Amino acid sequence: MPMNHFYDLSEVDFDSVARLSARALELRRRVKPRRFEGRALGLLFMDPSLRTQSSFQRAAALLGLDLVHLAGNVWNLETELGVKMNQDKAEHVKEAARVLGRYVDVLGVRSFAKSKDREKELQDPLVRGFMQYAGVPVINLESVRFHPCQALADRVTLDQIHMSKRAKFVLTWAYHPKPLPVAVPNSTLLMAAQRGMDVVLLHPEGYDLEPEIVNRARELAKQAGGSFEVTHDREAAIRGASAVYAKSWGCLAHFCDPATEATLRAPLEHWQVTSEWFGKARADAVFMHCLPVRRNVVVSDAVIDSRNSIIIEQAENRLWAQTAVLEEMLSAHGDHGVRTHVMSEEESR
Amino acid sequence: MPMNHFYDLSEVDFDSVARLSARALELRRRVKPRRFEGRALGLLFMDPSLRTQSSFQRAAALLGLDLVHLAGNVWNLETELGVKMNQDKAEHVKEAARVLGRYVDVLGVRSFAKSKDREKELQDPLVRGFMQYAGVPVINLESVRFHPCQALADRVTLDQIHMSKRAKFVLTWAYHPKPLPVAVPNSTLLMAAQRGMDVVLLHPEGYDLEPEIVNRARELAKQAGGSFEVTHDREAAIRGASAVYAKSWGCLAHFCDPATEATLRAPLEHWQVTSEWFGKARADAVFMHCLPVRRNVVVSDAVIDSRNSIIIEQAENRLWAQTAVLEEMLSAHGDHGVRTHVMSEEESR
Amino acid sequence: MPMNHFYDLSEVDFDSVARLSARALELRRRVKPRRFEGRALGLLFMDPSLRTQSSFQRAAALLGLDLVHLAGNVWNLETELGVKMNQDKAEHVKEAARVLGRYVDVLGVRSFAKSKDREKELQDPLVRGFMQYAGVPVINLESVRFHPCQALADRVTLDQIHMSKRAKFVLTWAYHPKPLPVAVPNSTLLMAAQRGMDVVLLHPEGYDLEPEIVNRARELAKQAGGSFEVTHDREAAIRGASAVYAKSWGCLAHFCDPATEATLRAPLEHWQVTSEWFGKARADAVFMHCLPVRRNVVVSDAVIDSRNSIIIEQAENRLWAQTAVLEEMLSAHGDHGVRTHVMSEEESR
Repeated sequence: MPMNHFYDLSEVDFDSVARLSARALELRRRVKPRRFEGRALGLLFMDPSLRTQSSFQRAAALLGLDLVHLAGNVWNLETELGVKMNQDKAEHVKEAARVLGRYVDVLGVRSFAKSKDREKELQDPLVRGFMQYAGVPVINLESVRFHPCQALADRVTLDQIHMSKRAKFVLTWAYHPKPLPVAVPNSTLLMAAQRGMDVVLLHPEGYDLEPEIVNRARELAKQAGGSFEVTHDREAAIRGASAVYAKSWGCLAHFCDPATEATLRAPLEHWQVTSEWFGKARADAVFMHCLPVRRNVVVSDAVIDSRNSIIIEQAENRLWAQTAVLEEMLSAHGDHGVRTHVMSEEESR
Repeated sequence: MPMNHFYDLSEVDFDSVARLSARALELRRRVKPRRFEGRALGLLFMDPSLRTQSSFQRAAALLGLDLVHLAGNVWNLETELGVKMNQDKAEHVKEAARVLGRYVDVLGVRSFAKSKDREKELQDPLVRGFMQYAGVPVINLESVRFHPCQALADRVTLDQIHMSKRAKFVLTWAYHPKPLPVAVPNSTLLMAAQRGMDVVLLHPEGYDLEPEIVNRARELAKQAGGSFEVTHDREAAIRGASAVYAKSWGCLAHFCDPATEATLRAPLEHWQVTSEWFGKARADAVFMHCLPVRRNVVVSDAVIDSRNSIIIEQAENRLWAQTAVLEEMLSAHGDHGVRTHVMSEEESR
Repeated sequence: MPMNHFYDLSEVDFDSVARLSARALELRRRVKPRRFEGRALGLLFMDPSLRTQSSFQRAAALLGLDLVHLAGNVWNLETELGVKMNQDKAEHVKEAARVLGRYVDVLGVRSFAKSKDREKELQDPLVRGFMQYAGVPVINLESVRFHPCQALADRVTLDQIHMSKRAKFVLTWAYHPKPLPVAVPNSTLLMAAQRGMDVVLLHPEGYDLEPEIVNRARELAKQAGGSFEVTHDREAAIRGASAVYAKSWGCLAHFCDPATEATLRAPLEHWQVTSEWFGKARADAVFMHCLPVRRNVVVSDAVIDSRNSIIIEQAENRLWAQTAVLEEMLSAHGDHGVRTHVMSEEESR
């Protein structure tokens, strides 16, 4: 570090991730966070949220930050450059980002896929637009491609329970009635690889994650002293697992074609984490999920309600992980009250 | 007390209600509230709100509480146990409650009826689910069945104007273009009975409240030294009344059948509080309503704009009543900054 | 002053506007704002917002104010007197205003046109209703007719860059796919006239602003020592311009008839601020817009991205202008913690 943006946890160096996790656990033990009175956090939710909205509001308060909270009630933003804006987008991200960057010191943005153009959307144009133009550090509150706050909270949770580094970590696809985003599986996979675990990515045929993500996970695992493997074999994957992270996602090949995607997904309802399957993991294996989760679809009541389930710890750690990230960002960027943007002579002509 | 949840005012013992009301009136006279710096209130609105959203935000600030405010922008929550969640509910209340309970010290929840299943909905599954799972005290911000914050504010208002205990308190049904919820009439009835007033429940045939509520009101009136009566006779009811509380509600027999309900309600437009009718009450009778109110439908302009109308005092007292409730809840639950949930060895394995 | 409401900047006397602008520029240079701990700002957004929501949240925090923030999640409000409220409006502004005025010390309200009744809506019944009934100072966060916060921020920006008083200020109509409100053009025009500039109002035939507004601008210009002119001639207007303020608005003659309005607007796409046209202004001319702006519809990328564009400064100055307005309002209204409304004997009977 210093941390500029927090877009993708896997871009953060190994030592900094370890330090952030350790700090989150200190904060969880009620070590007092630093205070940043007079500075401000902005939150812009272009899509729904329960945990992220809540935990960031509380994190801001714990750090003494002023809060600017926009959840709904804002028009759509254009991200393409050079376009004639005569359709449904009332404002360009260039303006929205620059303006919000004048009001706050750190800016969080959530924006999901619209499923109209796979190549463009997987570039995360909105969140990256904010990063490019806001002039202040930006936190990705879940974009099309990454959910770094969730990934850090999951890392914190694994550290909290002292999960050994070389434990077997299985990220398993699960059935869901809708084609869900890939942000969480991408970020989870990279987080576990970066932690040096023995990572297994388990999914049905056709549900591959992006090759670039898979390759990066493989590379990170190697660097971190762990291993990485992709499989479609549920029986092999579960054996010896210490952590089973369930998550559904849609088939990327049909990103813009939900009808075809639904046909592909329909016969996969048995991809549920049931006691029968989960019982083949180690006796002390933990069940993980980012929430929200659909009970008895993604995971059975028996598993999610068992002592093996650590989903609520993961969710609580959102608060502490995010508080640690904000501390780091704000410490790195000086402590000068309201961000000092003084118009230069040139600007003011 | 100590108060755990604040779900239904009539469950709170007589002395505690009296003390909360007295404290609210102190706060209204600008006695400084206690401060709870470092602790947090969460507010979750699954349905619209004007007064409740506003007054709880201000109450939190007066008490020095951090605020987590979720109004819209959240998906639907499942409340049934054991269900296969493959429909429109993206998360179970079990998870939502447990998670929010990790972020805040007190949690307020609003959730109205969906009018799909009378028996289930009248059990208040969402608010009760939060009470069961949140792990922190829960405040009912208006559920299907009760609106305790409104009831306490109304009690405070009656105490503020020194309304005598044995005054005649008439809760009258009023016409409205929609079948409205029963939360306010239920809570109003029980509040007046609990205050020991001479309570008259006045409504057209077919608009009975639940027998359990009516029986409880009768019992409370008896315990408190007042009286209780149900009537359909508008002329008899208004004579000698000191307080006329108007409220519309839908016919419970057609809870899930709005078309039939509308037919039953259509001929009842004359159930409006007009000067002609209200003028038969005592000259100093007060007109009460919980707001929002439809003018010249539920009550005529002449009555609502008269000196007899105390609706704005009722609304202001929402702020003071809720501040008193939060003070009581937070005092009862210790003063330890962020709620100390330290994962047990068992949980952390 | 003292300032009661902040509804229309042109109603504020010349000296007070100059003082507010100077104060805003001090605040921008990080002079500490006054603190009003224990007092509260309420914000009610009946329509979407990005800048206004954000900058007012931050302004409240800078001033130490408690915040009550309602954005969406509120029902429609009736503004007509004497009406039988059996349609879509669940509450009258009389009640909403009186109630919110009990919870906060200053109240901001945003409400756009519904395009059902031109004469009534141009009276700003909702915002004026709040002014009439709230019992506390009201800030217009953009009504059908005025946007005083934007106008003051624009004034601050002109002062910031030391634009000479008698510079030529051109407010030009621009094409837009929708018939937009007149609040900003009205307020911009009056602001520039009030500043004593040489004001040119440029628009296509049929896009006249209200005669009352135009006459008031003419009168203000005269009083302030500037000039005022209306023209349809783009070539004449741009020559010698020092400031070009672009804004679209709908034809008022077809306020309630969008289909006819669209036909009138369709052939006017060439009313865009392009380099070719803007290049005929002075070399140091500034480009201004209130945002949100549609690129390559209202203004070309080349102009908005040029060094001549000061749109982000205008937006930043929203924060400082509003902070100055709140300071003035709250200083004028005494410093007594929560607003002391003690029920009179008469009220409490």
